Amino acid sequence: MKITNLEKTPATRMNMKGAINVTRQIPISSRDGSPSFAFRVFTIEPGGNTPFHQHHYEHLNYVIQGSGKLKTASGEYTVTRGDFMLVQPNETHQYVNTDTSTSLVIICGVPVEYE
Amino acid sequence: MKITNLEKTPATRMNMKGAINVTRQIPISSRDGSPSFAFRVFTIEPGGNTPFHQHHYEHLNYVIQGSGKLKTASGEYTVTRGDFMLVQPNETHQYVNTDTSTSLVIICGVPVEYE
Repeated sequence: MKITNLEKTPATRMNMKGAINVTRQIPISSRDGSPSFAFRVFTIEPGGNTPFHQHHYEHLNYVIQGSGKLKTASGEYTVTRGDFMLVQPNETHQYVNTDTSTSLVIICGVPVEYE
Repeated sequence: MKITNLEKTPATRMNMKGAINVTRQIPISSRDGSPSFAFRVFTIEPGGNTPFHQHHYEHLNYVIQGSGKLKTASGEYTVTRGDFMLVQPNETHQYVNTDTSTSLVIICGVPVEYE
């Protein structure tokens, strides 16, 4: 059993090449004994973005706050608070905060071996 | 790639014994080709609750809206919007909406073989 929230969860700057003004928190991970899946949370400041990148595992995303774009190799999509997104393995993707005042905050679920 | 939200996701009554005034939605699951994990969402009306039950897989939970109690064999805990909860395999658990006016809405992540 673990109960936490973002105020209690340390935040670090996302330092992957191409990331602009993104912080990362990990409320649930292998360090909590989670058996198969982990929850990261990314906070993308207004005008910021995650890298346009791909990897061989999926994301299960949920928008906690804000709005922006999900850019992929096949097009770009508007996402907003309350949206759920499944990014498949090897699908190139990038989240962009297109808002000028509100941070875009996204849960990013990944297999536990990556977190 | 899938992008959806709760307005677009069918809701069914949770009919497990012990469930009171709970509806269930499944925004991301094996039917979407999700490789390892699924997202259910439970909406527990004021005064309602999920069953006090256990199973051999975990939950990764996030409170989208509302507040209530997470009851376990070892005690009960207040949970509120923005909280993340890890319920381990075989841990007996129940969510209770203790509010009188606002539904308690919770993401419930489970291994994809269960959804």
